[in-house]
Amino acid sequence: MENKTITAVRGFLAGAMHCGIKESGKPDLALLVSKVPAAAAGVFTTNKVQGAPVIIGREHIAGGHLQGCVINSGCANVCTGQRGLRDAREMCVLAARHLKNAGLPLLPAQMLPSSTGVIGRFLPMDKLRRGLPTLVEKLADTAQAGEAFAQGILTTDTCVKTAYTTLRAGGSTVTIAGNCKGSGMIAPNMATMLAYVATDAAIAPAALRRIVKAVADQTFNCVTVDQHTSTSDTFVCLANGMSGGRRLTGSGLNTFAAGLMEVCLSLAKQIARDGEGATKLVRVFVCGGRTSADAKRAALAIANSPLVKTAIHGGDPNWGRFVSAAGYSGANMDVGKSVCKVGKITVFRAGRPTEVALSKVEAAMRQTEIDITLDLGTSGTGTAEVFTCDLSREYITINADYHT
Amino acid sequence: MENKTITAVRGFLAGAMHCGIKESGKPDLALLVSKVPAAAAGVFTTNKVQGAPVIIGREHIAGGHLQGCVINSGCANVCTGQRGLRDAREMCVLAARHLKNAGLPLLPAQMLPSSTGVIGRFLPMDKLRRGLPTLVEKLADTAQAGEAFAQGILTTDTCVKTAYTTLRAGGSTVTIAGNCKGSGMIAPNMATMLAYVATDAAIAPAALRRIVKAVADQTFNCVTVDQHTSTSDTFVCLANGMSGGRRLTGSGLNTFAAGLMEVCLSLAKQIARDGEGATKLVRVFVCGGRTSADAKRAALAIANSPLVKTAIHGGDPNWGRFVSAAGYSGANMDVGKSVCKVGKITVFRAGRPTEVALSKVEAAMRQTEIDITLDLGTSGTGTAEVFTCDLSREYITINADYHT
Repeated sequence: MENKTITAVRGFLAGAMHCGIKESGKPDLALLVSKVPAAAAGVFTTNKVQGAPVIIGREHIAGGHLQGCVINSGCANVCTGQRGLRDAREMCVLAARHLKNAGLPLLPAQMLPSSTGVIGRFLPMDKLRRGLPTLVEKLADTAQAGEAFAQGILTTDTCVKTAYTTLRAGGSTVTIAGNCKGSGMIAPNMATMLAYVATDAAIAPAALRRIVKAVADQTFNCVTVDQHTSTSDTFVCLANGMSGGRRLTGSGLNTFAAGLMEVCLSLAKQIARDGEGATKLVRVFVCGGRTSADAKRAALAIANSPLVKTAIHGGDPNWGRFVSAAGYSGANMDVGKSVCKVGKITVFRAGRPTEVALSKVEAAMRQTEIDITLDLGTSGTGTAEVFTCDLSREYITINADYHT
Repeated sequence: MENKTITAVRGFLAGAMHCGIKESGKPDLALLVSKVPAAAAGVFTTNKVQGAPVIIGREHIAGGHLQGCVINSGCANVCTGQRGLRDAREMCVLAARHLKNAGLPLLPAQMLPSSTGVIGRFLPMDKLRRGLPTLVEKLADTAQAGEAFAQGILTTDTCVKTAYTTLRAGGSTVTIAGNCKGSGMIAPNMATMLAYVATDAAIAPAALRRIVKAVADQTFNCVTVDQHTSTSDTFVCLANGMSGGRRLTGSGLNTFAAGLMEVCLSLAKQIARDGEGATKLVRVFVCGGRTSADAKRAALAIANSPLVKTAIHGGDPNWGRFVSAAGYSGANMDVGKSVCKVGKITVFRAGRPTEVALSKVEAAMRQTEIDITLDLGTSGTGTAEVFTCDLSREYITINADYHT
């Protein structure tokens, strides 16, 4: 079978293992490495409380180059002070040392560390010290190794999240492939989870940075599960230039940006669909906003309202919750000219309900993919698209009953 | 037994009945009337989608006087266009006509209408037309009538919400008593539910307006169940001057304001405690904010986070969720100087966890009343206090399964 994992990108090796952080025995340590230094760009959480790995990761990526990422799950290394910073640095030092021993010399500052899991606990460094040499031995460019990496970064996710595309740019075939994790503590305000995208495109760090930021805003930043912006959010793209093509400029850059958008939008939707306890994927599209920022405000208010999310869970045709959420969002709105649709059914227009039978709306609400469209009724052209999921008893169970 | 209901206030009559809007057979139509015109002040929802009764109520209260309130539950009369406005006006016309027939002449514009329930349905006016004459006959100043009124305004509430106090001001004993409703679709951005407070204090409309706004900001506007600001929120205070005392000024006004604060804070906490599906009352206190607005932003982010609310529901000592919610709130925060307490236990200080045993924190989290305190660590003196409840499976059941 064709390899469509992250190791399908020329020059990238990956792997994962269980080093003992998670009691479940699931993989909890993962590694992604490029054989050569790569241009790198990333976006990180805007939460004022930032994980130690985020702080160190920002330092390491500042120069525009990286060669790999070392990621653990089961412990977020957040709210851990100076000791947390030392631990995040040591993750990079350990990875670099064992990679050098394996014949792949690189500096610790070329590794980006990430940790997710419980906040307020120190990393069990002894387990990382024991695990990393084994993990480096496992590194490979096989589909199996790519699949292991996709598994290794997960926490409460119920499935791996992976996306892959190829395109022609700069005179060669470029591959873009990525993985992400995220299920709870998901709200858009930069990257909103961990995402690693590898490409063999040749691209200047500055151009990559610009594209990564634009893509994040229209993909990961449009996903919300529970509006709780995490302290660990990281989205990083490594471009190692091993496609053999020219350094991308002009239309080649545009083609690359479109491919990266495709990969990241796929990953973002996979996060929404796998939101903790989710049974439905919900797309909220808002148009007629005075500005796009206004439209996004309304779309997020709808997507984050527990009343909206429970109505969707129950298949309740209670569209008043959608309209009223936009009403408190702070977005400009002309209620008398506003229009609300569930799927293709118009339920609200000209300030009052349409004549449509509620049973038809109910049928639309019972689907597993729900489209909510709201025209804010201003004369503006602002639009926004946001992805979310429903709110179920299972979300409560996951977050209340399984003690940390 | 002493009457401590809203009819304990001199000159106020109340009553409620089932007129047929609610299928459950529970009371769905309520009336509060003062024998004489009263100074009146109110605050209303800031949602851009406003119920027809809110629009009409704002008109009627604009002159600073009212003589009563007519309230139905089971249908919110929101998103109902011109027909909804006509229906809200007719509620007042009907109430005034039948009160006049009963010997209590007043203008329709002296009645404030309120409706809560499902959005996007028209009021069943035939039921109101048939019910109101009977309801007017039932009006009384007994404790039973006051209790019926408290019941009649409820929707998904599981209990009546009532508060009462007396004080000396203006040379006489002043009584303040009130009721409110609210359980779901509760978020602070003005009054956030229906609340009716009656007093026999003599007070000028302008002074009452100033006090009502200040009290709302520190009581009802500090409650959140699900951050969904309703389209029907109304808090109105009627002061009919029948205490026999002088018109309040100076220290008399201050005493009155303190009494109104006491009554409204009690009502506000009752809403949080009876939030849909709630099993715990949660107080979030934030200090060390650069401004009080900043502190409130952080307190609301904590109180509205589904991850915080589920942790509280499950008694999970996962305080990282509290700190990280403040981190994404937009409030200024110095994480290294921030302090977080659960009850009286300090769990986070100087950027890292304290040495306290998690089992102790867990015991504190198992209480039915939980105090979360967060010092934002800036040099500012801003503080805020917010009340909320936990998030349980029962909230999902109420809002997903019982179709509207």
